Formats: sequence, C-alpha cells, structure tokens
Amino acid sequence: MKTFAAALAIAVLLLGVGGSAMAQQKPEDAIKYRQSAFFIMGQSFGPLAAMAKGDRPYDKEVAIKNATIVEFMSKLPWDRFGPGTDMGNTKAKPEIWENMDDFKAKAEKMQVETAKLLLAAQTGDPATLKAQVGETGKACKACHDNFRNK
Amino acid sequence: MKTFAAALAIAVLLLGVGGSAMAQQKPEDAIKYRQSAFFIMGQSFGPLAAMAKGDRPYDKEVAIKNATIVEFMSKLPWDRFGPGTDMGNTKAKPEIWENMDDFKAKAEKMQVETAKLLLAAQTGDPATLKAQVGETGKACKACHDNFRNK
Repeated sequence: MKTFAAALAIAVLLLGVGGSAMAQQKPEDAIKYRQSAFFIMGQSFGPLAAMAKGDRPYDKEVAIKNATIVEFMSKLPWDRFGPGTDMGNTKAKPEIWENMDDFKAKAEKMQVETAKLLLAAQTGDPATLKAQVGETGKACKACHDNFRNK
Repeated sequence: MKTFAAALAIAVLLLGVGGSAMAQQKPEDAIKYRQSAFFIMGQSFGPLAAMAKGDRPYDKEVAIKNATIVEFMSKLPWDRFGPGTDMGNTKAKPEIWENMDDFKAKAEKMQVETAKLLLAAQTGDPATLKAQVGETGKACKACHDNFRNK
C-alpha cells in the first residue's frame, strides 16, 4: 500500500479540478451538473462493484476504464452546492448546508477513496480491487446516509 | 502548432477510455449517461466560449480546468448509442444509426478538437484559446446539425 502514497499526493493536488470553474451558473443547471456527475460516477462504479461481488468476470482493462471515470467524476460535483441549489429538482438534504464542514470532509474522503480505487484497478489484482471497491462504496454511502434523500 | 503533435498522439491513444466500459446497461440509463456527459461538457465549454467572446475575463487556470473537463467528457458518450437507445427520452435523430460511419467520424473529429482545446488552454495565450474554441464549437455543431433534434 506504500506505493499509493506518491500517486495519492498527486491526486489530492488535482482535487481542485472542478473548483471555481463555474461562475454565474443557474441553480437548476448546477443541480443538473452535479446530478450528471453523480450519475456517470454511479454507472461507472457499477461494473467495478459487479466484479467485486463476482457477478461479472474480472477484467483489468474494463476495471481501469471505469475507475478512471469514477475518479475523474468524483471531483466535479462539490462546487455546485452553492446558494439556491438546496431546492428544486434535488434529493440533497438541508443538512448539507447546515453541516457544510462535515459534508466537505466526507466529499474529500470520497475523492481520496476514488483515487485509491483507480490505483487498485491499475494493480491488476482482483483482491486489491475488491477491497478498495468496498472502501470506496463506504465513502459514497457515508454521504448518502447523511445528506441525500431516498 | 507543431508542439500539439505529441500531445495529440497521446490524446488519440486515450480516446477509447469509455469504450466497452459498459455492458448490460439499460437503454434508458445509456441515454441518461450520454446526456449527462454532454451536459457537463456543454456547461464546461460555456466559460471558454464566454472568454473567447470577451463576455468574461480571460483566466488561464479557469480555462484549463474547464478544458480538462470538456476533453474528458468528450470521450464518454459514444459507446452509449447501442441498440434500443434510439427511442425514449432522447433528442438523438434516427440519422445516427442510418449513418453510423459519419456519426463516428464526427465524434472522433470532436474529440480531436477537444484535445486541442485543452492544449490551447494550457498555452496561456488568449488568442490561441479563442481560435481553438471556434474550431471545437464547429466540431460540436457539425454533429448537432445532422444528428440531434432541437
């Protein structure tokens, strides 16, 4: 797991990709943007979860492709929770804005876990991938449990 | 423009990121996936177009952030035009499936132009960015004109 350190440092440096890239986005577009990012993330996490569960044969290339998408998408939603985006067509709970520090901490944790997911996929070792799918799934769930309506 | 060559070669090699990453995706999810990718791409192209038009001050970092997203997203939609995704909640025209070779050619052209867009943003030269925003916009429009309902 030590080999993760350098790559993780880079990943953390890159976390800001989506930051301040917006400006003057309409609240409904910000909501749609973050929903789009989460949707693509979820669709790309699906095949990895299926491999981890044994519902789908392990395939290193497919794992890397999907983990690459999950990792990239995981950086995009966070600056789209600005003013006015707490209402309308959204499952976001008011708790996000009431506990923004906790929300941000969980968002950062999730990004670290998606960076590790990509590294795990790149190892080509199914057991490593399986373990990290579990950790990444937990990080997703931590936010969903607290901050997202069903 | 010669400095683009090496980076472009890499970009073209990477074009397949989304390829075969799916499998057993429901047609409605494939449609939502590609729409999500196009939406994020459009939202990220917006600030670049605004800079090119002079509607927004030039900012190298913001340009790179948005161009990075545009370039990444431009690789995702193309394997989500499979069987059953020509109907339902979609603006995709039947012409896509009737002229798949032309559609794919235009999709590839667009990906080349988004790779060049990122390189143009990285130069830090507003005029280079402006010119490439125009070329990328044309590549987007070529597909919209032929293959997308209003």
